[in-house]
Amino acid sequence: MSLDTPLRLGVAGLGTVGAGVLKIVRRHGDLLAARAGRPVEVVAVSARSRGKDRGVPIDAFAWEDDPVALARRDDIDVFVELMGGTDGPAKAATEAAIAAGKDVVTANKAMLAIHGQALAEAAEAGGRVLRFEAGVAGGIPVVKALTEGLAGNEISRVMGVMNGTCNYILTRMESGHLNYQEVFSEAEKLGYLEADPTLDVGGIDAAHKLTLLASIAFGTRIDFSAVVIEGIERITIEDIEQAADMGYRIKLLGVAEMTGRGLETRMTPCLVPMTSPLGQLENATNMVVLEGDAVGQVVLRGAGAGEGPTASAVMSDIVDIARGTRVATFGRPAAALVAAKAARTTTPAPYYLRLELKDRPGALAKVAAVLGEAGISIDRMRQYGHEDTAAPVLIVTHRTGRDAVDAALAALPATAVVLAEPVAIRIENV
Amino acid sequence: MSLDTPLRLGVAGLGTVGAGVLKIVRRHGDLLAARAGRPVEVVAVSARSRGKDRGVPIDAFAWEDDPVALARRDDIDVFVELMGGTDGPAKAATEAAIAAGKDVVTANKAMLAIHGQALAEAAEAGGRVLRFEAGVAGGIPVVKALTEGLAGNEISRVMGVMNGTCNYILTRMESGHLNYQEVFSEAEKLGYLEADPTLDVGGIDAAHKLTLLASIAFGTRIDFSAVVIEGIERITIEDIEQAADMGYRIKLLGVAEMTGRGLETRMTPCLVPMTSPLGQLENATNMVVLEGDAVGQVVLRGAGAGEGPTASAVMSDIVDIARGTRVATFGRPAAALVAAKAARTTTPAPYYLRLELKDRPGALAKVAAVLGEAGISIDRMRQYGHEDTAAPVLIVTHRTGRDAVDAALAALPATAVVLAEPVAIRIENV
Repeated sequence: MSLDTPLRLGVAGLGTVGAGVLKIVRRHGDLLAARAGRPVEVVAVSARSRGKDRGVPIDAFAWEDDPVALARRDDIDVFVELMGGTDGPAKAATEAAIAAGKDVVTANKAMLAIHGQALAEAAEAGGRVLRFEAGVAGGIPVVKALTEGLAGNEISRVMGVMNGTCNYILTRMESGHLNYQEVFSEAEKLGYLEADPTLDVGGIDAAHKLTLLASIAFGTRIDFSAVVIEGIERITIEDIEQAADMGYRIKLLGVAEMTGRGLETRMTPCLVPMTSPLGQLENATNMVVLEGDAVGQVVLRGAGAGEGPTASAVMSDIVDIARGTRVATFGRPAAALVAAKAARTTTPAPYYLRLELKDRPGALAKVAAVLGEAGISIDRMRQYGHEDTAAPVLIVTHRTGRDAVDAALAALPATAVVLAEPVAIRIENV
Repeated sequence: MSLDTPLRLGVAGLGTVGAGVLKIVRRHGDLLAARAGRPVEVVAVSARSRGKDRGVPIDAFAWEDDPVALARRDDIDVFVELMGGTDGPAKAATEAAIAAGKDVVTANKAMLAIHGQALAEAAEAGGRVLRFEAGVAGGIPVVKALTEGLAGNEISRVMGVMNGTCNYILTRMESGHLNYQEVFSEAEKLGYLEADPTLDVGGIDAAHKLTLLASIAFGTRIDFSAVVIEGIERITIEDIEQAADMGYRIKLLGVAEMTGRGLETRMTPCLVPMTSPLGQLENATNMVVLEGDAVGQVVLRGAGAGEGPTASAVMSDIVDIARGTRVATFGRPAAALVAAKAARTTTPAPYYLRLELKDRPGALAKVAAVLGEAGISIDRMRQYGHEDTAAPVLIVTHRTGRDAVDAALAALPATAVVLAEPVAIRIENV
């Protein structure tokens, strides 16, 4: 590829993001050429339905029914994979593109979280790049910030709210005083949810993203199976409001951290201080916090999804390639990534516990005894006024291990004073 | 330069940032080599005093008394300019490095805001890169985010708090209920101020940074003279507290925006909503807000100065060069940047006005009449309790032009009811 000839794209998948990419290339042809130093052109496309109106004409492009055939076309330089899906056509076409010597740009975090190690190795063995800025936190250029902007740092921790749908649900529950199911249905009607909503609310989508950032941050092999994942399905409006009463908001928070016990990666609901940047994050906005030994803390915030933001990220990778920038998928050769020992336990933290106790003398003492036996000490406790026989009690513990919390939860039923299933949520004092 | 041989650095200037760079190269040799795909080595250095203890050994490096001689050494690939200063040795050495076919990495925004156009053109004519991530907002990778991460966007606006010292002074005035001069002296004692403190508090340093971002954002030639600059020297604790009372904080805010009237660049104190990310920015932290047509708003926050953060940014440019990344200084060839018409007036905005009025009937009516004649309508007004003959009055206007505000300020003395010099500060509802 010379730097004065056009960079020719083959775009597979013309949903929201694909259409967004076509629109940017069409609208900003001159701007892209000025910035990239060469024209950027869409040559061929592939999608499920050729006739669908996407708000942007596709007649000028060659059409392929089969994305694998698109990936192999001699007249494209870059295969832009925007179909989605862990396996199936996305993976087959990406593999075909790499085998045919194409660079690949994808927004597909699910595919990369599972197959990214092999795909990146294959691309790099062939001297090609595989880039995925759009796969993490939408329009926020976080892959670039971590891989390139913070390249002089030993990274100590990466944190973030990386699923806009979950953050929308949690903030909407609070603002509307609504329960989870009400907001879930609302989000479904508004088309905010994935076809399989457990990808969103189950924390899986966000965990895919965290997996990719962890590899860049720590130079470790892609290992989605090591992520501790807990979704937001069990968060109640009571938890949200009582956490707020104690100065916290509940967020689906991802944390990747290299500890003495190994690499800890978790995507779980956490209480974060209401006054922290993460605590103030509202609606579908994403935020990623990067911590390095030289730079300290860098915080990035922006739209985590949607046509424009995601297409913006795809274009960032495309302009990089047009400019001749060649950076390894995970910031160093994929073959040189090391297998990390996954931390067996999570870093100790304070926990928020919500219990419904029988309203009778000595109930609280029994709970306190169970906590004490598990080695958990209490920082703050509140008992709320109530009209029936169940007394809601909130406890904020001092730092403790998750195993101790689990031991205490397991021992609580034997006290015969706990009415409902107790809730335990980690507190992250970010 | 081959990609398997070491990248050899010549570092000129061994102050805080220079020492920070040497420490990172020393501490993270393996990490840098893994990420860059080749070793990164310091070969030669230059500074004012050879013997000074910098917390990092320099005996292993060749020494040059003259940075120009360092810049021309045959055994360096990249000249790292960390001396500072608009002209003098920094400029001479940078020019020498470019003439000798070296890539250049600098943290010197003052030099680039004045000479960046010519320097970038010279570098690019010779096929070299001149990069300056550390010149803007310290450790925040904002040059990269704007130049590369948002390369698919038409940028509509760039805003930011980019001088940590000013933000420290303003937040410390509020938290300590101190006046400007008290905090200024405190900052001086702590070593927070430049040798010439007007660079900081006069808004000049921040305006240098804004000039550079504006060129990247809008593809316009470097034009520092077009920036409307106002420092924070006249901000009083009364303004800070009364602004807070109305829900605002005062920040030294930079805004670069392409308007129908031309390119508007200004670095002035502004009131911003206390609840906005910019309003919540405390101490020496920096924040930059980037707005693009596809991505929407991206916000970046981090340390704007200091050894580690600034050295981190320098290393980002160095690793880019080691990886073979070649991006034009301002995101497109400097010779292709267009001369922007500078907007003659600033975009209309609400203004905060603080007046001291004689405490007598009709005083307020006279002020209101003057504002009315200037075409300024009042949104909110507060008169504060007082014990002497001067009545403090705060006015928040509706959107109006700065020229109308200036006309009103000029007409106020004739009313003979205004005691002190009135204060007018723009409100930016970010």
